[in-house]
Amino acid sequence: MLTLFHACHSRSTRIVQLIDELGARDRVEIRPVTIPRRDGSGAPDAANPHPEHKVPLLLHDGVPIRESNAIMQYLCELFPEAGLAPMPGQPGRGPFLSWMAWYGNVMEPVYVHSFAGLEHPLLQTTFRGLPEVEARLAEALRDRPYLLGERFSAADLLIGSTFAWMPEATPDVAQVKDWAARCTGRGAARRAAEYDARLAAG
Amino acid sequence: MLTLFHACHSRSTRIVQLIDELGARDRVEIRPVTIPRRDGSGAPDAANPHPEHKVPLLLHDGVPIRESNAIMQYLCELFPEAGLAPMPGQPGRGPFLSWMAWYGNVMEPVYVHSFAGLEHPLLQTTFRGLPEVEARLAEALRDRPYLLGERFSAADLLIGSTFAWMPEATPDVAQVKDWAARCTGRGAARRAAEYDARLAAG
Ligand SMILES: N[C@@H](CCC(=O)N[C@@H](CS)C(=O)NCC(=O)O)C(=O)O
Ligand SMILES: N[C@@H](CCC(=O)N[C@@H](CS)C(=O)NCC(=O)O)C(=O)O
Repeated sequence: MLTLFHACHSRSTRIVQLIDELGARDRVEIRPVTIPRRDGSGAPDAANPHPEHKVPLLLHDGVPIRESNAIMQYLCELFPEAGLAPMPGQPGRGPFLSWMAWYGNVMEPVYVHSFAGLEHPLLQTTFRGLPEVEARLAEALRDRPYLLGERFSAADLLIGSTFAWMPEATPDVAQVKDWAARCTGRGAARRAAEYDARLAAG
Repeated sequence: MLTLFHACHSRSTRIVQLIDELGARDRVEIRPVTIPRRDGSGAPDAANPHPEHKVPLLLHDGVPIRESNAIMQYLCELFPEAGLAPMPGQPGRGPFLSWMAWYGNVMEPVYVHSFAGLEHPLLQTTFRGLPEVEARLAEALRDRPYLLGERFSAADLLIGSTFAWMPEATPDVAQVKDWAARCTGRGAARRAAEYDARLAAG
Protein backbone atom coordinates (compact mmCIF):
# COMPACT_ATOMS: atom_id res chain seq x y z
CA MET A 1 0.00 0.00 0.00
CA LEU A 2 1.42 3.34 -1.16
CA THR A 3 0.23 6.67 0.25
CA LEU A 4 1.52 10.10 -0.75
CA PHE A 5 1.00 12.96 1.70
CA HIS A 6 0.51 15.96 -0.54
CA ALA A 7 -0.19 19.68 -0.24
CA CYS A 8 -1.33 21.50 -3.36
CA HIS A 9 1.13 23.90 -4.99
CA SER A 10 4.13 22.59 -3.09
CA ARG A 11 7.16 20.36 -3.54
CA SER A 12 4.83 17.35 -3.50
CA THR A 13 3.12 18.45 -6.74
CA ARG A 14 6.06 17.03 -8.67
CA ILE A 15 5.46 13.64 -7.02
CA VAL A 16 1.83 13.79 -8.20
CA GLN A 17 3.20 14.47 -11.69
CA LEU A 18 5.68 11.60 -11.44
CA ILE A 19 2.96 9.15 -10.34
CA ASP A 20 1.00 10.14 -13.46
CA GLU A 21 4.11 9.77 -15.68
CA LEU A 22 4.65 6.30 -14.16
CA GLY A 23 1.07 5.29 -15.01
CA ALA A 24 0.67 4.51 -11.30
CA ARG A 25 -2.24 6.79 -10.39
CA ASP A 26 -4.39 3.82 -9.34
CA ARG A 27 -1.55 2.33 -7.25
CA VAL A 28 -0.93 5.32 -4.97
CA GLU A 29 -3.44 6.91 -2.63
CA ILE A 30 -2.94 10.68 -2.50
CA ARG A 31 -3.78 12.08 0.93
CA PRO A 32 -4.08 15.90 0.99
CA VAL A 33 -2.67 17.60 4.10
CA THR A 34 -2.18 21.23 5.09
CA ILE A 35 1.15 23.02 5.57
CA PRO A 36 1.95 26.55 6.78
CA ARG A 37 1.89 28.92 3.77
CA ARG A 38 3.92 32.07 3.19
CA ASP A 39 0.76 34.22 3.37
CA GLY A 40 0.14 33.00 6.94
CA SER A 41 -2.64 30.56 6.02
CA GLY A 42 -2.40 26.81 6.62
CA ALA A 43 -0.83 24.94 9.53
CA PRO A 44 1.16 21.79 10.21
CA ASP A 45 -1.21 18.83 9.83
CA ALA A 46 -1.25 16.22 12.59
CA ALA A 47 -2.43 13.70 9.98
CA ASN A 48 0.94 14.04 8.22
CA PRO A 49 3.39 11.44 9.59
CA HIS A 50 6.48 13.41 8.44
CA PRO A 51 8.46 14.16 11.64
CA GLU A 52 8.50 17.87 10.70
CA HIS A 53 5.06 17.79 9.03
CA LYS A 54 6.53 18.52 5.63
CA VAL A 55 5.49 17.29 2.21
CA PRO A 56 6.14 15.19 0.26
CA LEU A 57 6.09 12.05 2.40
CA LEU A 58 5.50 8.59 0.95
CA LEU A 59 4.34 5.66 3.08
CA HIS A 60 4.95 2.19 1.65
CA ASP A 61 3.33 -0.50 3.77
CA GLY A 62 3.79 1.77 6.78
CA VAL A 63 7.45 2.63 6.08
CA PRO A 64 7.97 6.41 5.68
CA ILE A 65 10.16 7.73 2.86
CA ARG A 66 11.04 11.44 2.87
CA GLU A 67 12.90 13.82 0.51
CA SER A 68 11.61 14.50 -3.00
CA ASN A 69 14.61 13.02 -4.81
CA ALA A 70 14.56 9.84 -2.69
CA ILE A 71 10.80 9.40 -3.14
CA MET A 72 11.14 9.85 -6.90
CA GLN A 73 13.96 7.34 -7.17
CA TYR A 74 12.00 4.88 -5.06
CA LEU A 75 8.86 5.19 -7.16
CA CYS A 76 10.86 4.82 -10.38
CA GLU A 77 12.28 1.57 -8.99
CA LEU A 78 8.79 0.30 -8.11
CA PHE A 79 7.58 0.99 -11.66
CA PRO A 80 10.68 0.42 -13.82
CA GLU A 81 8.69 -0.46 -16.95
CA ALA A 82 7.65 3.20 -17.28
CA GLY A 83 11.26 3.98 -18.23
CA LEU A 84 11.47 7.18 -16.18
CA ALA A 85 14.91 6.26 -14.78
CA PRO A 86 17.79 3.97 -15.75
CA MET A 87 17.91 1.07 -13.28
CA PRO A 88 21.15 -0.19 -11.65
CA GLY A 89 23.48 -1.55 -14.32
CA GLN A 90 21.70 0.29 -17.16
CA PRO A 91 23.41 3.02 -19.21
CA GLY A 92 22.84 6.46 -17.72
CA ARG A 93 22.47 5.20 -14.15
CA GLY A 94 25.45 7.23 -12.90
CA PRO A 95 24.36 10.51 -14.50
CA PHE A 96 20.78 9.90 -13.29
CA LEU A 97 21.93 9.49 -9.67
CA SER A 98 24.21 12.53 -10.05
CA TRP A 99 21.43 14.82 -11.27
CA MET A 100 18.98 13.65 -8.59
CA ALA A 101 21.57 14.28 -5.86
CA TRP A 102 22.79 17.54 -7.44
CA TYR A 103 19.26 18.92 -7.34
CA GLY A 104 19.05 18.51 -3.57
CA ASN A 105 22.72 19.04 -2.64
CA VAL A 106 23.35 22.06 -4.85
CA MET A 107 20.52 23.49 -6.93
CA GLU A 108 17.88 23.86 -4.23
CA PRO A 109 20.26 25.40 -1.65
CA VAL A 110 21.64 27.79 -4.29
CA TYR A 111 18.15 29.08 -5.20
CA VAL A 112 17.17 29.40 -1.55
CA HIS A 113 20.34 31.37 -0.73
CA SER A 114 19.71 33.57 -3.73
CA PHE A 115 16.07 34.35 -2.76
CA ALA A 116 17.10 34.95 0.80
CA GLY A 117 19.84 37.32 -0.39
CA LEU A 118 22.44 35.40 1.63
CA GLU A 119 26.12 35.52 0.73
CA HIS A 120 29.03 33.94 2.54
CA PRO A 121 32.37 32.42 1.47
CA LEU A 122 31.29 29.05 2.92
CA LEU A 123 28.18 29.03 0.73
CA GLN A 124 30.34 29.69 -2.30
CA THR A 125 32.83 26.91 -1.54
CA THR A 126 30.20 24.37 -0.55
CA PHE A 127 27.42 25.02 -3.06
CA ARG A 128 28.79 27.58 -5.56
CA GLY A 129 26.12 29.94 -6.96
CA LEU A 130 23.59 30.62 -9.70
CA PRO A 131 26.22 31.03 -12.46
CA GLU A 132 27.51 27.50 -11.85
CA VAL A 133 23.99 26.01 -11.62
CA GLU A 134 23.04 27.66 -14.90
CA ALA A 135 26.32 26.62 -16.54
CA ARG A 136 25.78 22.96 -15.58
CA LEU A 137 22.29 22.98 -17.17
CA ALA A 138 23.44 24.85 -20.28
CA GLU A 139 26.32 22.41 -20.81
CA ALA A 140 24.20 19.31 -20.29
CA LEU A 141 21.49 20.47 -22.70
CA ARG A 142 23.78 21.86 -25.39
CA ASP A 143 23.56 18.74 -27.57
CA ARG A 144 20.58 16.78 -26.28
CA PRO A 145 16.89 17.39 -25.55
CA TYR A 146 16.95 15.97 -21.99
CA LEU A 147 19.48 15.75 -19.17
CA LEU A 148 20.19 12.07 -19.83
CA GLY A 149 19.95 12.22 -23.62
CA GLU A 150 17.06 11.52 -25.97
CA ARG A 151 14.57 10.54 -23.34
CA PHE A 152 12.67 12.44 -20.62
CA SER A 153 13.47 11.12 -17.13
CA ALA A 154 12.60 11.79 -13.52
CA ALA A 155 15.72 14.00 -13.39
CA ASP A 156 14.14 16.37 -15.92
CA LEU A 157 10.89 16.30 -13.95
CA LEU A 158 12.62 17.15 -10.64
CA ILE A 159 15.04 19.77 -11.92
CA GLY A 160 12.56 21.25 -14.41
CA SER A 161 9.94 21.62 -11.65
CA THR A 162 11.98 24.56 -10.31
CA PHE A 163 11.10 26.55 -13.44
CA ALA A 164 7.42 25.54 -13.36
CA TRP A 165 7.29 26.99 -9.87
CA MET A 166 9.24 30.17 -10.71
CA PRO A 167 9.43 30.67 -14.48
CA GLU A 168 11.24 33.99 -14.02
CA ALA A 169 14.25 32.07 -12.73
CA THR A 170 14.66 30.07 -15.96
CA PRO A 171 18.23 30.62 -17.20
CA ASP A 172 18.29 32.89 -20.24
CA VAL A 173 19.92 30.27 -22.47
CA ALA A 174 17.99 29.04 -25.50
CA GLN A 175 18.47 25.31 -24.97
CA VAL A 176 17.61 25.57 -21.26
CA LYS A 177 14.44 27.59 -21.93
CA ASP A 178 13.38 25.09 -24.61
CA TRP A 179 14.03 22.17 -22.28
CA ALA A 180 12.12 23.84 -19.42
CA ALA A 181 9.18 24.38 -21.79
CA ARG A 182 9.29 20.70 -22.82
CA CYS A 183 9.30 19.63 -19.15
CA THR A 184 6.55 21.94 -17.94
CA GLY A 185 4.42 21.40 -21.06
CA ARG A 186 3.90 17.68 -20.53
CA GLY A 187 0.39 16.26 -20.11
CA ALA A 188 1.25 14.92 -16.67
CA ALA A 189 2.43 18.40 -15.57
CA ARG A 190 -0.84 19.94 -16.77
CA ARG A 191 -2.90 17.23 -15.04
CA ALA A 192 -0.97 17.69 -11.77
CA ALA A 193 -1.67 21.44 -11.95
CA GLU A 194 -5.37 20.77 -12.60
CA TYR A 195 -5.46 18.34 -9.68
CA ASP A 196 -3.94 20.99 -7.42
CA ALA A 197 -6.41 23.61 -8.66
CA ARG A 198 -9.31 21.29 -7.72
CA LEU A 199 -7.77 20.65 -4.28
CA ALA A 200 -7.27 24.37 -3.70
CA ALA A 201 -10.89 25.05 -4.70
CA GLY A 202 -11.81 22.53 -1.96
CA MET B 1 37.43 1.23 -15.52
CA LEU B 2 36.70 3.15 -12.31
CA THR B 3 38.71 6.20 -11.23
CA LEU B 4 38.12 8.25 -8.08
CA PHE B 5 39.46 11.81 -8.03
CA HIS B 6 40.40 12.34 -4.42
CA ALA B 7 41.93 15.02 -2.20
CA CYS B 8 43.18 13.97 1.22
CA HIS B 9 41.18 15.12 4.25
CA SER B 10 38.15 16.12 2.22
CA ARG B 11 34.68 14.91 1.32
CA SER B 12 36.27 12.28 -0.92
CA THR B 13 37.88 10.51 2.06
CA ARG B 14 34.56 8.88 2.78
CA ILE B 15 34.55 7.43 -0.74
CA VAL B 16 38.00 5.95 -0.08
CA GLN B 17 36.53 4.39 3.06
CA LEU B 18 33.50 3.07 1.16
CA ILE B 19 35.70 1.46 -1.51
CA ASP B 20 37.55 -0.36 1.28
CA GLU B 21 34.26 -1.40 2.94
CA LEU B 22 33.09 -2.74 -0.44
CA GLY B 23 36.27 -4.81 -0.81
CA ALA B 24 36.82 -2.98 -4.11
CA ARG B 25 40.23 -1.40 -3.49
CA ASP B 26 41.75 -3.27 -6.45
CA ARG B 27 38.85 -2.28 -8.72
CA VAL B 28 39.10 1.50 -8.37
CA GLU B 29 42.09 3.63 -9.26
CA ILE B 30 42.44 6.50 -6.79
CA ARG B 31 43.87 9.60 -8.46
CA PRO B 32 45.00 12.29 -5.97
CA VAL B 33 44.26 15.89 -7.01
CA THR B 34 44.68 19.23 -5.29
CA ILE B 35 41.87 21.56 -4.14
CA PRO B 36 41.98 25.05 -2.60
CA ARG B 37 42.30 24.69 1.18
CA ARG B 38 40.99 26.98 3.90
CA ASP B 39 44.53 27.94 4.93
CA GLY B 40 45.18 29.33 1.43
CA SER B 41 47.26 26.39 0.24
CA GLY B 42 46.26 24.19 -2.70
CA ALA B 43 44.55 25.14 -5.95
CA PRO B 44 42.00 23.79 -8.40
CA ASP B 45 43.62 20.91 -10.30
CA ALA B 46 43.34 20.90 -14.10
CA ALA B 47 43.70 17.10 -13.95
CA ASN B 48 40.32 16.90 -12.12
CA PRO B 49 37.49 16.53 -14.67
CA HIS B 50 34.82 17.82 -12.23
CA PRO B 51 33.35 20.93 -13.92
CA GLU B 52 34.04 22.95 -10.74
CA HIS B 53 37.22 21.02 -9.87
CA LYS B 54 35.65 19.59 -6.73
CA VAL B 55 36.10 16.21 -5.12
CA PRO B 56 34.83 13.54 -5.04
CA LEU B 57 34.38 12.74 -8.70
CA LEU B 58 34.05 9.19 -10.00
CA LEU B 59 34.73 8.28 -13.63
CA HIS B 60 33.26 4.99 -14.84
CA ASP B 61 34.42 4.14 -18.35
CA GLY B 62 34.72 7.86 -19.01
CA VAL B 63 31.30 8.81 -17.61
CA PRO B 64 31.60 11.34 -14.74
CA ILE B 65 29.52 10.88 -11.60
CA ARG B 66 29.49 13.71 -9.05
CA GLU B 67 28.01 14.25 -5.56
CA SER B 68 29.11 12.09 -2.62
CA ASN B 69 25.71 10.49 -2.00
CA ALA B 70 25.23 9.63 -5.70
CA ILE B 71 28.76 8.19 -5.98
CA MET B 72 28.21 6.07 -2.87
CA GLN B 73 24.89 4.74 -4.12
CA TYR B 74 26.42 3.96 -7.49
CA LEU B 75 29.37 2.09 -6.00
CA CYS B 76 27.06 0.11 -3.69
CA GLU B 77 25.09 -0.96 -6.77
CA LEU B 78 28.28 -2.04 -8.57
CA PHE B 79 29.30 -4.18 -5.59
CA PRO B 80 25.98 -5.35 -4.10
CA GLU B 81 27.43 -8.51 -2.56
CA ALA B 82 29.22 -6.36 0.04
CA GLY B 83 25.82 -5.65 1.60
CA LEU B 84 26.49 -1.96 2.22
CA ALA B 85 23.06 -0.91 0.87
CA PRO B 86 19.69 -2.56 0.30
CA MET B 87 19.13 -2.93 -3.45
CA PRO B 88 15.84 -2.02 -5.21
CA GLY B 89 13.06 -4.27 -3.95
CA GLN B 90 14.93 -5.27 -0.78
CA PRO B 91 13.70 -4.31 2.71
CA GLY B 92 15.15 -1.00 3.86
CA ARG B 93 15.54 0.41 0.35
CA GLY B 94 13.19 3.36 1.02
CA PRO B 95 14.84 4.37 4.32
CA PHE B 96 18.29 3.95 2.70
CA LEU B 97 17.39 6.34 -0.15
CA SER B 98 15.81 8.75 2.36
CA TRP B 99 18.91 8.95 4.56
CA MET B 100 21.28 9.37 1.59
CA ALA B 101 19.12 12.21 0.22
CA TRP B 102 18.53 13.73 3.66
CA TYR B 103 22.27 14.01 4.21
CA GLY B 104 22.71 16.20 1.13
CA ASN B 105 19.34 18.00 1.11
CA VAL B 106 19.20 18.80 4.82
CA MET B 107 22.09 17.79 7.07
CA GLU B 108 24.96 19.28 5.09
CA PRO B 109 23.22 22.64 4.42
CA VAL B 110 22.18 22.87 8.09
CA TYR B 111 25.77 22.41 9.33
CA VAL B 112 27.12 24.87 6.75
CA HIS B 113 24.54 27.50 7.74
CA SER B 114 25.36 26.93 11.38
CA PHE B 115 29.16 27.33 10.84
CA ALA B 116 28.61 30.38 8.72
CA GLY B 117 26.36 31.85 11.42
CA LEU B 118 23.60 32.41 8.87
CA GLU B 119 19.97 32.70 9.95
CA HIS B 120 16.95 33.43 7.77
CA PRO B 121 13.28 32.38 7.85
CA LEU B 122 13.70 30.73 4.44
CA LEU B 123 16.54 28.56 5.76
CA GLN B 124 14.33 27.48 8.64
CA THR B 125 11.34 26.56 6.43
CA THR B 126 13.43 24.83 3.78
CA PHE B 127 16.05 23.00 5.81
CA ARG B 128 15.08 23.44 9.48
CA GLY B 129 18.06 23.60 11.88
CA LEU B 130 20.45 21.68 14.13
CA PRO B 131 17.76 20.71 16.67
CA GLU B 132 15.76 18.90 13.97
CA VAL B 133 18.87 17.22 12.50
CA GLU B 134 19.88 15.99 15.94
CA ALA B 135 16.32 14.87 16.75
CA ARG B 136 16.12 12.80 13.56
CA LEU B 137 19.37 10.99 14.44
CA ALA B 138 18.40 10.48 18.08
CA GLU B 139 15.01 9.03 17.10
CA ALA B 140 16.45 6.71 14.44
CA LEU B 141 19.12 5.33 16.77
CA ARG B 142 16.96 5.01 19.89
CA ASP B 143 16.30 1.30 19.40
CA ARG B 144 18.89 0.12 16.89
CA PRO B 145 22.67 0.22 16.43
CA TYR B 146 22.61 1.61 12.87
CA LEU B 147 20.33 3.89 10.86
CA LEU B 148 18.77 1.01 8.93
CA GLY B 149 18.73 -1.49 11.80
CA GLU B 150 21.16 -4.19 12.85
CA ARG B 151 23.62 -3.68 10.03
CA PHE B 152 26.11 -0.94 9.13
CA SER B 153 25.34 0.63 5.72
CA ALA B 154 26.63 3.35 3.43
CA ALA B 155 24.09 5.70 5.08
CA ASP B 156 25.94 5.33 8.41
CA LEU B 157 29.26 5.88 6.61
CA LEU B 158 28.05 9.08 4.89
CA ILE B 159 26.16 10.62 7.80
CA GLY B 160 28.68 9.44 10.40
CA SER B 161 31.55 10.99 8.38
CA THR B 162 30.34 14.41 9.54
CA PHE B 163 31.35 13.54 13.09
CA ALA B 164 34.70 12.07 12.06
CA TRP B 165 35.47 15.41 10.44
CA MET B 166 34.18 17.54 13.34
CA PRO B 167 33.79 15.41 16.48
CA GLU B 168 32.81 18.48 18.52
CA ALA B 169 29.55 18.63 16.54
CA THR B 170 28.45 15.15 17.63
CA PRO B 171 25.00 15.51 19.21
CA ASP B 172 25.17 15.09 22.98
CA VAL B 173 22.82 12.10 23.03
CA ALA B 174 24.17 8.76 24.28
CA GLN B 175 22.92 6.58 21.42
CA VAL B 176 24.14 9.07 18.79
CA LYS B 177 27.61 9.36 20.37
CA ASP B 178 27.86 5.55 20.58
CA TRP B 179 26.79 5.17 16.96
CA ALA B 180 29.26 7.85 15.79
CA ALA B 181 32.03 6.01 17.66
CA ARG B 182 31.03 2.73 15.98
CA CYS B 183 31.09 4.44 12.54
CA THR B 184 34.39 6.27 12.96
CA GLY B 185 36.08 3.32 14.73
CA ARG B 186 35.80 0.93 11.80
CA GLY B 187 38.92 -0.60 10.24
CA ALA B 188 38.08 0.96 6.87
CA ALA B 189 37.80 4.43 8.49
CA ARG B 190 41.20 3.99 10.13
CA ARG B 191 42.76 2.77 6.88
CA ALA B 192 41.27 5.71 4.92
CA ALA B 193 42.76 8.10 7.50
CA GLU B 194 46.15 6.37 7.21
CA TYR B 195 45.96 6.57 3.42
CA ASP B 196 45.26 10.31 3.67
CA ALA B 197 48.13 10.79 6.11
CA ARG B 198 50.52 9.13 3.64
CA LEU B 199 49.16 11.33 0.79
CA ALA B 200 49.55 14.48 2.89
CA ALA B 201 53.12 13.47 3.75
CA GLY B 202 53.73 13.34 -0.01
N1 LIG C 1 13.99 18.64 1.18
C1 LIG C 1 12.57 18.40 1.19
C2 LIG C 1 11.85 19.73 1.35
C3 LIG C 1 10.38 19.56 1.65
C4 LIG C 1 9.71 20.88 1.99
O1 LIG C 1 10.36 21.82 2.47
N2 LIG C 1 8.39 20.97 1.73
C5 LIG C 1 7.62 22.17 2.02
C6 LIG C 1 6.54 22.37 0.97
S1 LIG C 1 7.17 23.03 -0.53
C7 LIG C 1 6.86 21.98 3.33
O2 LIG C 1 6.35 20.91 3.61
N3 LIG C 1 6.77 23.04 4.13
C8 LIG C 1 5.98 23.02 5.31
C9 LIG C 1 6.77 23.39 6.52
O3 LIG C 1 7.91 23.90 6.39
O4 LIG C 1 6.26 23.18 7.64
C10 LIG C 1 12.15 17.70 -0.10
O5 LIG C 1 12.70 17.98 -1.16
O6 LIG C 1 11.26 16.84 -0.04
N1 LIG D 1 28.04 18.32 -2.71
C1 LIG D 1 29.39 17.86 -3.01
C2 LIG D 1 30.39 18.74 -2.31
C3 LIG D 1 31.81 18.52 -2.77
C4 LIG D 1 32.77 19.53 -2.19
O1 LIG D 1 32.38 20.66 -1.83
N2 LIG D 1 34.05 19.13 -2.03
C5 LIG D 1 35.08 20.00 -1.52
C6 LIG D 1 36.10 19.20 -0.69
S1 LIG D 1 35.49 18.81 0.91
C7 LIG D 1 35.89 20.59 -2.67
O2 LIG D 1 36.17 19.90 -3.63
N3 LIG D 1 36.30 21.86 -2.55
C8 LIG D 1 37.16 22.47 -3.51
C9 LIG D 1 36.58 23.72 -4.10
O3 LIG D 1 35.57 24.22 -3.56
O4 LIG D 1 37.13 24.19 -5.10
C10 LIG D 1 29.53 16.41 -2.56
O5 LIG D 1 28.95 16.02 -1.53
O6 LIG D 1 30.21 15.65 -3.24
